[in-house]
Amino acid sequence: MDNMEDNIKCVTCTAPVNIAVIKYWGKRDEELVLPVNSSVSVTLDQAQLRAKTTVMASPSFPNDRMWLNGKEQSMDSKRIQNLLNEIKQWRKEKHNGDTCTDGLLMWKVHICSENNFPTAAGLASSAAGYACLAYSLAKLYNVEGDLSAIARRGSGSACRSMYGGFVEWDMGSQEDGSDSVSRQIASENHWPELRVLLLVVSDQQKSMGSTEGMQATLKTSQLMDRRIQCVPESVEKIKEAILKKDFKTFAEITMKDSNQFHAVCLDSCPPIFYLTDVSKQIIQLVHAFNSSCGITKVAYTFDAGPNACLYLLEEDVGRVLSLICHFFPPDKDDLNTFVQGLQTPSISPLKVLLWT
Amino acid sequence: MDNMEDNIKCVTCTAPVNIAVIKYWGKRDEELVLPVNSSVSVTLDQAQLRAKTTVMASPSFPNDRMWLNGKEQSMDSKRIQNLLNEIKQWRKEKHNGDTCTDGLLMWKVHICSENNFPTAAGLASSAAGYACLAYSLAKLYNVEGDLSAIARRGSGSACRSMYGGFVEWDMGSQEDGSDSVSRQIASENHWPELRVLLLVVSDQQKSMGSTEGMQATLKTSQLMDRRIQCVPESVEKIKEAILKKDFKTFAEITMKDSNQFHAVCLDSCPPIFYLTDVSKQIIQLVHAFNSSCGITKVAYTFDAGPNACLYLLEEDVGRVLSLICHFFPPDKDDLNTFVQGLQTPSISPLKVLLWT
Repeated sequence: MDNMEDNIKCVTCTAPVNIAVIKYWGKRDEELVLPVNSSVSVTLDQAQLRAKTTVMASPSFPNDRMWLNGKEQSMDSKRIQNLLNEIKQWRKEKHNGDTCTDGLLMWKVHICSENNFPTAAGLASSAAGYACLAYSLAKLYNVEGDLSAIARRGSGSACRSMYGGFVEWDMGSQEDGSDSVSRQIASENHWPELRVLLLVVSDQQKSMGSTEGMQATLKTSQLMDRRIQCVPESVEKIKEAILKKDFKTFAEITMKDSNQFHAVCLDSCPPIFYLTDVSKQIIQLVHAFNSSCGITKVAYTFDAGPNACLYLLEEDVGRVLSLICHFFPPDKDDLNTFVQGLQTPSISPLKVLLWT
Repeated sequence: MDNMEDNIKCVTCTAPVNIAVIKYWGKRDEELVLPVNSSVSVTLDQAQLRAKTTVMASPSFPNDRMWLNGKEQSMDSKRIQNLLNEIKQWRKEKHNGDTCTDGLLMWKVHICSENNFPTAAGLASSAAGYACLAYSLAKLYNVEGDLSAIARRGSGSACRSMYGGFVEWDMGSQEDGSDSVSRQIASENHWPELRVLLLVVSDQQKSMGSTEGMQATLKTSQLMDRRIQCVPESVEKIKEAILKKDFKTFAEITMKDSNQFHAVCLDSCPPIFYLTDVSKQIIQLVHAFNSSCGITKVAYTFDAGPNACLYLLEEDVGRVLSLICHFFPPDKDDLNTFVQGLQTPSISPLKVLLWT
């Protein structure tokens, strides 16, 4: 959508959420947001979860301003500034280099972003938000290129939200970060039976932000360098499992990587805890279920917070939802919102969000 | 105590509990109980915590039998059998080798062991128990030698309960385990200001026993080999800190090693969890307290369970107990038993066991 009447240029875009199966944890360059290891994620369907961003530029705006879910935010954030400066730089280079004094570049911008899911649900929304902002600004300034490198400047994992389906963020090796970009492993149509259940354990803000946590782990965990050595093999194996639609291998690597990520957090000093007793109960339930099935049917993964993301195949959604409902019965006032998302098999209600 | 009238030979001994500051986790030989790394512990005063074992041998006993805190236990345990066979072997070798047909060796034994603290408190009692058994049997059979090698056959960490004060269990390098023995780093009189607070978080049995857990970690954790590489340096540094009575270094290595041990448990597949939300709250409280003091005044360590062991200096016991009491107030019916152990500064009561 493009609108250039009355000296206002306006663009609106949406972007999806992604959930990592090989986690990004640790930057080798804070400023350029370059990671210490490659990561892999699954992009969720925008019908259930997405960020929507409108960017406007006008000569009549006295300042840059930004609203997130209707609430004004500071534009002083280094991440926002880096992202905005980087994309303006692209426009300058596209035109006359640093001498470019293009009107649009002088105009101030207004950014409005909102999510179609409760922010309070504690679901990582920054990846979708920054991906969306990068995409919208690229349209606004009419520049082209690998936008994952722009999104990355806002939030590392945002670069993986630039594609649907299964996505790898290659850590790259260049000092300037030019090869630290994402690419699609397989499209959203590749594995239509795959489903995701997001179990909202807590809607509290996390105790320690990712940026701070990553720095602490890199600086203090003695085990972290071993993790960094282990990741490349996990990345190759899970990419192969995705291409082959080998659920068992996909699930086992996913769980192992999640646990390893939380292990290096615990090995940090002071230790960083994201999993709670309820998170652990979910982990134990998944292992018990897989064990009773005699085959790995469900995988869990946890980001920097207590909420579980379960991967499973469509045919098992009913059984797993029933199980979760049995062990984690909803509060009375949650009955109607306990399950959200795609239509699910008829079961007792539970606080589960369901997406492709 | 020795008693040899009426054809009954009877010996009673006591042995102390020890709490590791560098953890033992993983065996390189299951049968001989040889560890993958050396470990270091502090032996607690027997006035507060000890095991007491009476062993009797008589030609009138038809079978070997054993009672633990008044309840009969099976003697089929491989650990008990290994320990008993090993010490009988020592007696044989002391006399005429394998041809020895000494009457005492033919007699059946009765073993009665009890702890002076509630078994339900979830405090590791097997170390004290097996140390005591090894010592009592050595007296019974009148053999001499490094008894830590005998105690080790019952439970690895038992070998560290053979000495008071600060003890190292050297992993050794011999295949037959002959050099995998414990030795005293410093005596119980070396650091009289050091105190221990044991915080009983749960008196439940642990979900996964140590033997099984160690095997799982060695087999499945990718981070474990890095831990094994890191331990020797930690052992050397903490021994130096103990000898210098350098509390800060002692405390920091203790906390780091505890967290690293729980990190490799979490990195196992399926993951092993011993810390609960309450354990984590204690960890966070200790870091917050140290941070507010501007110096490391308290160290925590957690064995294969949720109960915390805090090391601190005598001068800080009052403040720390008050803090614990504030954040973890006792239930009404626990008021009288909330604090046990040495006399403590006057504070509100809380469920804390206090020892030298």
